[in-house]
Amino acid sequence: MYRTHNCGQLRLTDAGSSVTLSGWVSISRDFGSLTFVDLRDRYGITQLVFDADARPELRQQVQQLGREYVIRVKGVVRERSNKNPNRETGDIEIEVNELDILNQSKTPPFTIEDNTDGGDDLRMKYRYLDLRRNPVQQNIIFRSRLAIETRKYLADQGFIEVETPFLIKSTPEGARDFVVPSRMNPGTFYALPQSPQTFKQLLMVSGLDKYFQIVKCFRDEDLRADRQPEFTQIDCEMSFITQEEILNTFEGLAKYLFKTIHNIDLGDFPRMTYDEAMTRYGSDKPDLRFGMEFAYLKEAVSGRGFAVFDQAENVIGIVAKDCEDRFSNKDMKELTEWLQRPQIGAKGLVYVKYGKDGIKSTIGKFYSDEDLQRIGEVCGAQQGDMLLILCGETEKTRKQLNELRLEMGRRLGLIKEGAFKPLWVVDFPLLEWDEDTQRFYAMHHPFTAPKQSDIEKMKSSDRAVLGNLRADAYDMVINGVEIGGGSIRIFDKELQATNFSLLGFSPEEAERQFGFLMNAFEYGAPPHGGIAFGFDRLCAVMSGQNNIRDFIAFPKNNQGRDVMIDAPSAIDAGQLKELGIEVKSQS
Amino acid sequence: MYRTHNCGQLRLTDAGSSVTLSGWVSISRDFGSLTFVDLRDRYGITQLVFDADARPELRQQVQQLGREYVIRVKGVVRERSNKNPNRETGDIEIEVNELDILNQSKTPPFTIEDNTDGGDDLRMKYRYLDLRRNPVQQNIIFRSRLAIETRKYLADQGFIEVETPFLIKSTPEGARDFVVPSRMNPGTFYALPQSPQTFKQLLMVSGLDKYFQIVKCFRDEDLRADRQPEFTQIDCEMSFITQEEILNTFEGLAKYLFKTIHNIDLGDFPRMTYDEAMTRYGSDKPDLRFGMEFAYLKEAVSGRGFAVFDQAENVIGIVAKDCEDRFSNKDMKELTEWLQRPQIGAKGLVYVKYGKDGIKSTIGKFYSDEDLQRIGEVCGAQQGDMLLILCGETEKTRKQLNELRLEMGRRLGLIKEGAFKPLWVVDFPLLEWDEDTQRFYAMHHPFTAPKQSDIEKMKSSDRAVLGNLRADAYDMVINGVEIGGGSIRIFDKELQATNFSLLGFSPEEAERQFGFLMNAFEYGAPPHGGIAFGFDRLCAVMSGQNNIRDFIAFPKNNQGRDVMIDAPSAIDAGQLKELGIEVKSQS
Repeated sequence: MYRTHNCGQLRLTDAGSSVTLSGWVSISRDFGSLTFVDLRDRYGITQLVFDADARPELRQQVQQLGREYVIRVKGVVRERSNKNPNRETGDIEIEVNELDILNQSKTPPFTIEDNTDGGDDLRMKYRYLDLRRNPVQQNIIFRSRLAIETRKYLADQGFIEVETPFLIKSTPEGARDFVVPSRMNPGTFYALPQSPQTFKQLLMVSGLDKYFQIVKCFRDEDLRADRQPEFTQIDCEMSFITQEEILNTFEGLAKYLFKTIHNIDLGDFPRMTYDEAMTRYGSDKPDLRFGMEFAYLKEAVSGRGFAVFDQAENVIGIVAKDCEDRFSNKDMKELTEWLQRPQIGAKGLVYVKYGKDGIKSTIGKFYSDEDLQRIGEVCGAQQGDMLLILCGETEKTRKQLNELRLEMGRRLGLIKEGAFKPLWVVDFPLLEWDEDTQRFYAMHHPFTAPKQSDIEKMKSSDRAVLGNLRADAYDMVINGVEIGGGSIRIFDKELQATNFSLLGFSPEEAERQFGFLMNAFEYGAPPHGGIAFGFDRLCAVMSGQNNIRDFIAFPKNNQGRDVMIDAPSAIDAGQLKELGIEVKSQS
Repeated sequence: MYRTHNCGQLRLTDAGSSVTLSGWVSISRDFGSLTFVDLRDRYGITQLVFDADARPELRQQVQQLGREYVIRVKGVVRERSNKNPNRETGDIEIEVNELDILNQSKTPPFTIEDNTDGGDDLRMKYRYLDLRRNPVQQNIIFRSRLAIETRKYLADQGFIEVETPFLIKSTPEGARDFVVPSRMNPGTFYALPQSPQTFKQLLMVSGLDKYFQIVKCFRDEDLRADRQPEFTQIDCEMSFITQEEILNTFEGLAKYLFKTIHNIDLGDFPRMTYDEAMTRYGSDKPDLRFGMEFAYLKEAVSGRGFAVFDQAENVIGIVAKDCEDRFSNKDMKELTEWLQRPQIGAKGLVYVKYGKDGIKSTIGKFYSDEDLQRIGEVCGAQQGDMLLILCGETEKTRKQLNELRLEMGRRLGLIKEGAFKPLWVVDFPLLEWDEDTQRFYAMHHPFTAPKQSDIEKMKSSDRAVLGNLRADAYDMVINGVEIGGGSIRIFDKELQATNFSLLGFSPEEAERQFGFLMNAFEYGAPPHGGIAFGFDRLCAVMSGQNNIRDFIAFPKNNQGRDVMIDAPSAIDAGQLKELGIEVKSQS
């Protein structure tokens, strides 16, 4: 037997007991005849004492012990003279009388400590050692707990977890598929699912009524820091359901998770239409942890001879409270340059500082102090505040000002640590026009139902009318991050065909790709809808962190590589031959 | 709102309530002014009554209703005059006063009934309709429940569920991998995991201590009836653990599942070594629901001038109780031919019938009645019994006799319905010699630890010695089906290298394929071991069924095809080009 207890378990009440422990040597301190070893496992750290006077036969072995050696000890629990109140086992130590070295360890390439000296690349290559560090291990344990509680809530609500297939059919719509050549059916390919969307809808046609699955999904996209080629969704679908009922069910899930895990009452989620979110925050995932709402100033600033504003489609400002004296001219120049980077692309930044010693502004030439005072009143700026203004085409300006708002929130420290501000964004557009390809794309996905009142308008050929169609689609947003999104689905074959045609599918193409779903709609499809949550992201947001990679046991890097196992890699010629495919030489 | 209650919910105590129900029209019976409709959903069936006299305005709509139409009704619950005791809602019916047809349905290609008229192929093509049938739906719900209870047990035992990656590295050892071409790293491939084996071992190196995952795995094998290219495992691994502790932990899981779900106490599992199982039953997964153990007769039958027996390496019999008069000469001929089919390959079948009117045997020419009586005594045959004997090379004969034993068990109805007979088979061989390739393969997998006492023998070059090495490997068997298997793992780099070399890996090959694991072993790998259960098979066995396909929502057929969605299928030339691969023309 390797252990009677784990390394986080023993307390003062165990004093006098004979125990066996196993674990890793975390730290070893040699004080001549006494050697203290911190023995570590998943559950905690227990102090071992080797007394060379009492057990001279252990002396030699103890001296061999290096960091991360794996050992088993037998000994007696005793009270510590020098207690450690920061450790749950801090009242006791083990007086060791038997020691087995179970495995040795080379010196790890970085320290196994909360604040390691290992860089990102090294920690990825030795991910199995990085996972030994407490903060990383706790993330993985947190993820497991979150999955358990999610399943508990959904099962209690009558949801059935159904596993949908991974080897499915490629559908060019949406992101790129990963494909899998079929050996038994040469020349053909499976695709890995980008989501179980069509299968969960088929399960509704099957009458499963309430489905969920915590499931891996795959997208072959060029990766950003917060994207992974494989990621996990909490995927849900319900039948005979209204949007209102779906929002309540999954608001309930979020409330349950925050209450159970963080003991935080989220309260009822505010709801905001897409239009309102864009108008007030320039984003469909506004961060409500701070204010700084958009003020529309076009009217207030027009007619003073400042051509830039006069000619702009829109002029929008935000008020940064009590900070007019915190930004020097140099700071403002740097902030302007930050906004002018291609990622944001603002032309320039106008500011008005409402200082104690008067008003300072980049547009003082065109506007009198009275004008600026009046503009300040329009947007609620008071003495001590700074007004930041962008102008131009409405949609672009909103996006730029959204970036500026978030940046100001960060710079001014307006985001309280541990605060969680959820909301629902509803009434998303059905379609989104793409200038490059000159066609509409589905804003959510092609199965999303238009609002009942907008169905007639789908017959229009007016791009403006089509662009304004609204869908029964909704996103759950927490702290400015889209945690989940979903929609009421189309369940009528004709309406689905109309939607495919708006998305540029020929009837043949729609039939080829989604014929099975449209056929299913002919056999009594119920009204249904659902939602999918990004599970990796939910883990990160609930932990107040940004990087989803920290919550994935074995993540891929930005090139889609697993540097630990060295994948992807070349495969044998024999494998390729069996699959009936050839690698084209790279030119 | 679509419903206030589901179709399995209302009882007599609800009489008088106004309710809204939605569901599918299961049956509609028209009795002139009264029409009765059975409304069905996942939860049950509720009877609706449309009274044409009271609600003439509904008459026309009601007449339109066809099978599988989706409707919503509002009405009042009332007591039924003609109660249906076989249905939980059988005491009530709904007097309908409002009807909405939510969706129509074409006539389904087969009846949505427990005993459908649909053939296998048709039901697969319309799997979403097959899943509407109660027995199929219940299988899927059973699976969901089994997953919930499995997770509950393991989480309560301190196991952490960790998601391991799906896009990993191809390793030619074992079954064929499905591979995934990488677009971002042209010319290279990911592989889909055949199991998370190496990752769970790395998690043990990471100190996760107790890992589990219910996870999809992939094997590109030629399919048999009970195999699927994608299948689900309950995958588990533990550190600082002995085989004994693993067996107890997972015997506990099986007991918990049977108790919770079936209210069956399995009792303690018998344990049998591989050698004993092969000796007594000719199988490493013996079905203990009936006896008929092997009797070794070589000694008893030798020296009577019957060359077939005299020259055979072994002569083995089984006794079929009380059935000497149940098999005619024709039956025996048919049974012999059954044994001689190439799948089994027996040369012939010898029998001795111990009848009331004397002994009848195919070997009466060589053996006197006294001889046969004595042979009967050796194997415990009594008057009324039939002794069936095969002979030849020991291993082959055992396998053939195992088939005969199972067949006799079925034919004689010895297998009691609802009986569950579990056992552990332990001490499997480490290596298995393959005549075709003239090399050893790992009987379990290359990471399995040899028994401590056999480690020295691994240095031998004697094939017989190596073939007799025993491993700390074990299978859980229930009713003759291998439900799960696992082993204690090697956690020492040198021993792992020795094992790879016995398996014919060059050091370079081992390094290329498993270098990351062997490197991990150098940084303090703990002793560890684990097990994996076939979750699809566990579902089937616990339900007393054979076909795992019935427990998979969307299974593939024997050609690896999903005939419902038509996958695998051709993909766009553009996709292939992006991936840098070409389909070779089929010659």
